[in-house]
Amino acid sequence: MSADNPDSTVNLNEQKAREQLIDLAADFYDQFARGDIPEMTLPTRTKSNIVFDEDSGVWVYGDRTSTRSANSVRGARKLLKAAYTVEFLANQLDENRSSTLRELYYLSESWDSEEAQFSTQDESNQLVEDLEIVSSVTREDFHMRPEESGAKLMGPLLLREQTRRGDREIHCQEDVGQGGYQIPNNPDTIEFLDHDIDFVMCVETGGMRDRLVENGFDTDYDCMVVHLGGQPARATRRIIKRLHDELDRPVVVFCDGDPWSYRIFGSVAYGSIKSAHLSEYLATPEARYVGIRPQDIVDYDLPTDPLSDSDVNALESELDDPRFQTDFWEEQIELQLDIEKKAEQQALAAQGLDFVTDTYLPERLGEMGVI
Amino acid sequence: MSADNPDSTVNLNEQKAREQLIDLAADFYDQFARGDIPEMTLPTRTKSNIVFDEDSGVWVYGDRTSTRSANSVRGARKLLKAAYTVEFLANQLDENRSSTLRELYYLSESWDSEEAQFSTQDESNQLVEDLEIVSSVTREDFHMRPEESGAKLMGPLLLREQTRRGDREIHCQEDVGQGGYQIPNNPDTIEFLDHDIDFVMCVETGGMRDRLVENGFDTDYDCMVVHLGGQPARATRRIIKRLHDELDRPVVVFCDGDPWSYRIFGSVAYGSIKSAHLSEYLATPEARYVGIRPQDIVDYDLPTDPLSDSDVNALESELDDPRFQTDFWEEQIELQLDIEKKAEQQALAAQGLDFVTDTYLPERLGEMGVI
Repeated sequence: MSADNPDSTVNLNEQKAREQLIDLAADFYDQFARGDIPEMTLPTRTKSNIVFDEDSGVWVYGDRTSTRSANSVRGARKLLKAAYTVEFLANQLDENRSSTLRELYYLSESWDSEEAQFSTQDESNQLVEDLEIVSSVTREDFHMRPEESGAKLMGPLLLREQTRRGDREIHCQEDVGQGGYQIPNNPDTIEFLDHDIDFVMCVETGGMRDRLVENGFDTDYDCMVVHLGGQPARATRRIIKRLHDELDRPVVVFCDGDPWSYRIFGSVAYGSIKSAHLSEYLATPEARYVGIRPQDIVDYDLPTDPLSDSDVNALESELDDPRFQTDFWEEQIELQLDIEKKAEQQALAAQGLDFVTDTYLPERLGEMGVI
Repeated sequence: MSADNPDSTVNLNEQKAREQLIDLAADFYDQFARGDIPEMTLPTRTKSNIVFDEDSGVWVYGDRTSTRSANSVRGARKLLKAAYTVEFLANQLDENRSSTLRELYYLSESWDSEEAQFSTQDESNQLVEDLEIVSSVTREDFHMRPEESGAKLMGPLLLREQTRRGDREIHCQEDVGQGGYQIPNNPDTIEFLDHDIDFVMCVETGGMRDRLVENGFDTDYDCMVVHLGGQPARATRRIIKRLHDELDRPVVVFCDGDPWSYRIFGSVAYGSIKSAHLSEYLATPEARYVGIRPQDIVDYDLPTDPLSDSDVNALESELDDPRFQTDFWEEQIELQLDIEKKAEQQALAAQGLDFVTDTYLPERLGEMGVI
């Protein structure tokens, strides 16, 4: 992204999005014109069709594909819905408007063909994902806004955001309140202007995020604190990736010590099966896990809870997941199954409110070579 | 709150909080000194002990009380925990630190008396609520931060927030990104400096909040848009009350048309049974419900879903709730039980993306005399 004119990049994406959509509709048209039954080919979106791409370092869809063909009523209806949606999205881009996935679902009720109306929101969500895959642009570039908004930033970064009311220059420590800077739905409207960030730390819970900010961790260590707020929204994952790639800074993830939190780490680092077509846009494969590790439960004698049956199942399923087949994760997950315990990140408070910033994080980040 | 020196108000609250805590500990001491068995008296916190206070216009606890006495091992242990917690909170205020409820729970593991340690977080949460009630100060004044943070503001308001890095002056349209201003955990660190707000609109969903902001509703109508994000956090309810009381502006609530959303309205307007001791601090009894009303489902022919059994039960329970016993709510709830349908606020998109801001809200707010 150019430092002088962020508009150009955003507009370029939108122009590309529009062209790709029109191309897709033109494809249907050409197939009709040739006397072929129209069809649309997509990668198969299952766990077994996820492969590791050595070049980009992320997990992407493999070679297996599925075809949507108009050779059945059901298939023809799917392509009709796709054509209506393409028209809606192209108009939306023309008018510089945006909408949510839920609005698209409801809007379809106003379309003149009843056959084109969506019967469930799953159907319209899925179609938008299909269009992302076939057009190779993201739904943000179609101006489809997510329902969930991004989380909050606090750290030494000056950015410029394009808003509908003009550009805003905001420093993510000096120009914001204690709550931090709210990541917009489409973080590609942000340009990074200047920064003193040494590393980026993603934090699972709001309580821990507030602890780090209260203890001045972001200023003491020139750390960009990113609040994940549980499973991170797309906007949050995108900004983490951009902080890593554009500013060339290490990214670490600080979560609870349980299998669900390892999945949160996974969604930052590896992306998800559902959105493997977006891994290169959303995943930060260089992200590393600070803790809470099962090893920390032992080393720091943390207050724990016993593993539930569903925790054990989730850990076992992670051992089977190709994305977790590294020495680090196999060792940690096996240790956890062995000690049968989990711990929350806020459990560090059992050794005092400053233990996390004075002892735990400096030790862990030192071992990892981050500080 | 003084326009010149917000510090004085916040510090006054903290000083009062500290004094009240010390008084409570002194009470225990005096009871011991007199040879009495120490005890603590609290209002009974049940639905049947909620009464409407005509003066303040909010629902508060009635006259029934329960007593915690040290005349049993269980009771004595409760008072021991209270004494330890009072000491921790008084120290926290001395040092100008803060912590979360979850940290308090874990911190208790470091206390020298094992008998004083909390066995569940429910126990420590409940104790902090008890201390709020007996001391008549809020847990924010004890510097107990909530886990959930407040939601977002967008509208014509210039405010000053005291942060740990100094004061920040922020205009909630001109100095923020598309995501808006993030309400801090304790909104009493905010002072309102200047504004052009005509009315305050609280919005349940992020999708609708973004729709209003995209369509420029906050600028066209000089409206302060407050994103509730589902059941609103205490910080969000507090800022709504302050916007109403200090700026003397009407507050309206815009939610989905289902019984769970009426409860969201209820928590803004009436407060909750669990926190009736805070109603005067958190509730805005003058808040009015814009919609979606069951009447709107009929009038605007909105796309709907059928009521589930739990929806019906929730509606019937609302009819029994003294806080919903008004003509408006009885009529609307009975209509909804009759039509057996519910609708989301984003269902308005079935009539186009601008219908909500061009037609629905102007009509409803006009009928209500707000615009």
